[in-house]
Amino acid sequence: MRVSSLFMPTQREVPADAEIISHQLMLRAGLMRKVASGFYSFLPMGYRAFRKVENIVREEMDRAGAQELIMPAVLPAEVYMASGRWEKFGPDMFRLQDRSGRSFCLGPTHEEPFTETVRDNVRSYRQLPVTLYQIQHKYRDEKRPRFGVMRAREFVMKDAYSFDADEKGLDQSYQAMYQAYCRIFDRCGLDYILVHADSGAMGGSGSQEFMVKSDVGEDAIAYCPACGYAANEEKAPCPAVRGFDGEAGTVEKVHTPNFRTIEELMAFLGLPPTAFAKTLLYDIDGKIVAVMLRGDREVNEIKLKNLFDANEAVLAGSADVERVTGAAVGFAGPVGLAEPIPVVADSEIAGMGNFVIGANETDYHFLNINVGRDFTPTRIADIRCAVEGDPCPSCGKPLSMCRGIEVGHIFKLGTKYSEALGCNFLNSDGEEKPMIMGCYGIGVGRTLAAIVEQHYDKDGIIWPMAVAPYSVIIVPTNSTDETINATASELHDRLTEAGIEVLLDDRDERPGVKFKDADLIGIPIRITVGRKAPEGIVEYKLRSDGNVVEKTPEEAVAEVLREIGRI
Amino acid sequence: MRVSSLFMPTQREVPADAEIISHQLMLRAGLMRKVASGFYSFLPMGYRAFRKVENIVREEMDRAGAQELIMPAVLPAEVYMASGRWEKFGPDMFRLQDRSGRSFCLGPTHEEPFTETVRDNVRSYRQLPVTLYQIQHKYRDEKRPRFGVMRAREFVMKDAYSFDADEKGLDQSYQAMYQAYCRIFDRCGLDYILVHADSGAMGGSGSQEFMVKSDVGEDAIAYCPACGYAANEEKAPCPAVRGFDGEAGTVEKVHTPNFRTIEELMAFLGLPPTAFAKTLLYDIDGKIVAVMLRGDREVNEIKLKNLFDANEAVLAGSADVERVTGAAVGFAGPVGLAEPIPVVADSEIAGMGNFVIGANETDYHFLNINVGRDFTPTRIADIRCAVEGDPCPSCGKPLSMCRGIEVGHIFKLGTKYSEALGCNFLNSDGEEKPMIMGCYGIGVGRTLAAIVEQHYDKDGIIWPMAVAPYSVIIVPTNSTDETINATASELHDRLTEAGIEVLLDDRDERPGVKFKDADLIGIPIRITVGRKAPEGIVEYKLRSDGNVVEKTPEEAVAEVLREIGRI
Repeated sequence: MRVSSLFMPTQREVPADAEIISHQLMLRAGLMRKVASGFYSFLPMGYRAFRKVENIVREEMDRAGAQELIMPAVLPAEVYMASGRWEKFGPDMFRLQDRSGRSFCLGPTHEEPFTETVRDNVRSYRQLPVTLYQIQHKYRDEKRPRFGVMRAREFVMKDAYSFDADEKGLDQSYQAMYQAYCRIFDRCGLDYILVHADSGAMGGSGSQEFMVKSDVGEDAIAYCPACGYAANEEKAPCPAVRGFDGEAGTVEKVHTPNFRTIEELMAFLGLPPTAFAKTLLYDIDGKIVAVMLRGDREVNEIKLKNLFDANEAVLAGSADVERVTGAAVGFAGPVGLAEPIPVVADSEIAGMGNFVIGANETDYHFLNINVGRDFTPTRIADIRCAVEGDPCPSCGKPLSMCRGIEVGHIFKLGTKYSEALGCNFLNSDGEEKPMIMGCYGIGVGRTLAAIVEQHYDKDGIIWPMAVAPYSVIIVPTNSTDETINATASELHDRLTEAGIEVLLDDRDERPGVKFKDADLIGIPIRITVGRKAPEGIVEYKLRSDGNVVEKTPEEAVAEVLREIGRI
Repeated sequence: MRVSSLFMPTQREVPADAEIISHQLMLRAGLMRKVASGFYSFLPMGYRAFRKVENIVREEMDRAGAQELIMPAVLPAEVYMASGRWEKFGPDMFRLQDRSGRSFCLGPTHEEPFTETVRDNVRSYRQLPVTLYQIQHKYRDEKRPRFGVMRAREFVMKDAYSFDADEKGLDQSYQAMYQAYCRIFDRCGLDYILVHADSGAMGGSGSQEFMVKSDVGEDAIAYCPACGYAANEEKAPCPAVRGFDGEAGTVEKVHTPNFRTIEELMAFLGLPPTAFAKTLLYDIDGKIVAVMLRGDREVNEIKLKNLFDANEAVLAGSADVERVTGAAVGFAGPVGLAEPIPVVADSEIAGMGNFVIGANETDYHFLNINVGRDFTPTRIADIRCAVEGDPCPSCGKPLSMCRGIEVGHIFKLGTKYSEALGCNFLNSDGEEKPMIMGCYGIGVGRTLAAIVEQHYDKDGIIWPMAVAPYSVIIVPTNSTDETINATASELHDRLTEAGIEVLLDDRDERPGVKFKDADLIGIPIRITVGRKAPEGIVEYKLRSDGNVVEKTPEEAVAEVLREIGRI
């Protein structure tokens, strides 16, 4: 392919609204174009790379025995009503009506139509297991679409669904997908970690996320450098601590006018945050609950929801706070509440002694509070977020925290959808049973962005060979020199005939411009044909290490084939 | 692939709501599944065939120098407003709003976003020509979705757009697409004809349709078996005829009570339909016009619209008819109208003499009317539909009529969109000019259905090799016989290793069931391993001719490779 004919609008400037490296580079290298907030086109160079990722996904799915199909992106409302998700998705779901007023949505994820498809066509255990997948556009009306294709409103997802007769079958199906995912991300050249995750709106239990470590990732991950344990922050268990065995001091009520934050109180009382127990009032499915944890900790709302098996846990409004505490906001505590409500203490509270709490009286706090003597929590449970240095729940060594980009997610769904939609089969005893399901997703565009996020330098992208839009770029330094042009064209044709995807930068531009573009678009191998062409010498350079080596054209061709693994 | 693991829900019964063969067979063979009216899933076997077609399209587009990209399916309203199509598409366009109330549509065709993309990134004639394409889901809220994927509301289309500096460039780009289309449909095994078409809502002039001949096609085509000329019925020119040179009779007014149709009048007056000139009143963009043509002819409303350069031409309502004619509906004529309105006569009228017309008086007609003597049309023009036997406008031999399925359409758009959206470039003289565009579409799902429509027999589909989901099916007749199973497995493995896509029907079913399914799903080559397996004999059968030949397994493998073109 000649660069003069290629539709590849590169740009020197960093686009104003692109905050992260992958988004900036994908725009600068002409890989994609914004159409509206959260909606992007992939331009030819970007789509070539995109399709490389897509094909890796497809090959590994097929190898794992999954069968590809494709569902409509537009789905009738009824499909999501039986599972309750028509309501549950809320404003995240794009909705529309057809000309006769029938309601449809743009599918955000396809558990329901896959379940219906299998329900309508599989009757017997002898037809199980079956794993089906599609690579298809999905739609979510994100509140804040951002980071280019990293969090878009239209995005391509590979979603697979497994149907098994029993739990053992599900384990095997899940394991096959797990291995396929590892191969996919390995082939994409990604450095990833596998974390335990909360399955959120998907339902079911048991799920793992494939996370690409990145400072720009939207997920916080607790991981153990010692043993390899890793979990999503929301899921990482925090250790219980031993009870306080010091001497309990005398309770004291202090006047703390207008000090409503832990920081203000710390300064006023001259105490560290670990001496405080903060009490937050939560509205958990409509019921007000007091939630206590150490002053420097954060509530893990997902753990909290799971503790109550609740749909929603949000901070209570000030009216509720004032009614329940009998005080202004900022002075809640477990002692002397105006209304009797449940008090949930984080497990860490049990190990604290002589701590400070709000007095349920405006502008007052209590000092020297102790669990058991001064109040008894309704429940003690792990409801805080893990932090750097917490002991690893697996080996006890200190955990590290990092951020990650979720590129894949595998779930054991169990019978949530098969029961809701009546997806049953007859087992070998002739009994009707719901199928046991798993579901498995990969964000294809996000994976591409994650690859860029992990493979770049100051000059541009450094594509791993497996996903590079082209493998080789040939740069003649002077497009008016006959020998140079002839050598460059011959190299182009020889490599093309060998089945190599090769670009020839035949533009009438200065070498500097061509080199800059070659680096920006990140082609793995660059062959420069310059002033030594008459001597039969060209320059061979890998984008990844930058070293330039002189070779004959024959040697260069052989080296390309070696590099690509053809020899 | 083992059939026991394959998700392929075949069915014996003809589905009730499937009217045409391709729709019936695609459902019966388990290729697809209806999700809602006009929305279908392709199941694994169907999607394999679908992707074969898709890949043929992609290969030929790439070979023709077109570059693939992908646009969002959801597009903001503004993209279609500049061209006026946001209004023009009317209820055919699926529309939706995002969570902040911004309007979007599901793209019905992508001229506008492609034009914007090129406008924003191409400045100079040196960057032209460029042809871009995508293979992507399109959406049209059809009034009557039908025939399965033949006329669906969500469908995959390959749409390409060319951008050139001048008309000559457009001719070349158009020609390259023309040739690519011929190769695509040839490779798909389709018998098609190329017709001149009206470009309809797409705008611009010069367009050709690739039509697959089929009785179930929605388009009527006039074609010449002698010279190969073909045109869409709406576009086929009808010949002018020589003027009437007989003797004009005396005008006579006859009482024709309650005879309002030509048929009734013919019977009453004992005259053939060619002796009548019917007058229809049309509302053409709000203006009432009398349209005359021979009694047995049909008005070609597209020719009529083009004649008046109008947006709409519909039959006038009865109130208008009664007011303009001064008579009940059914007695309109060009003589003695109550209101002076334009009279457009089809060119054929000029060759008629002594014909019958309505008298603009309830229950009366005139006999022996002649053009020139009794009335003078405002315009004489070709406004009728071509019919079987009309002379070919190219060679004069009689035309034939047939029906066709439109699978591809190529247009010369000219500057319609580039002017509307400001898609300009600087020519070699430094002048700013609008780019000259072409657009080129292929319905991928419809092409697949058209293939089935042309390749079947009473037992099922007969896939052309190039698009078959699998090339070979191996049928062991007895799944408990060790020799049979061993031979079948060995054949499966050898063919798979040779890169052949092969099914092994390992189900515990009677041979009859397996044969029926193999025929229904249309696998081109069937190898039956039966009772002669111990003697080293298997049966080799082509689905297309049904002849069974005994071969050794080695010979069968060699024959498969030969049939597929590998030897």
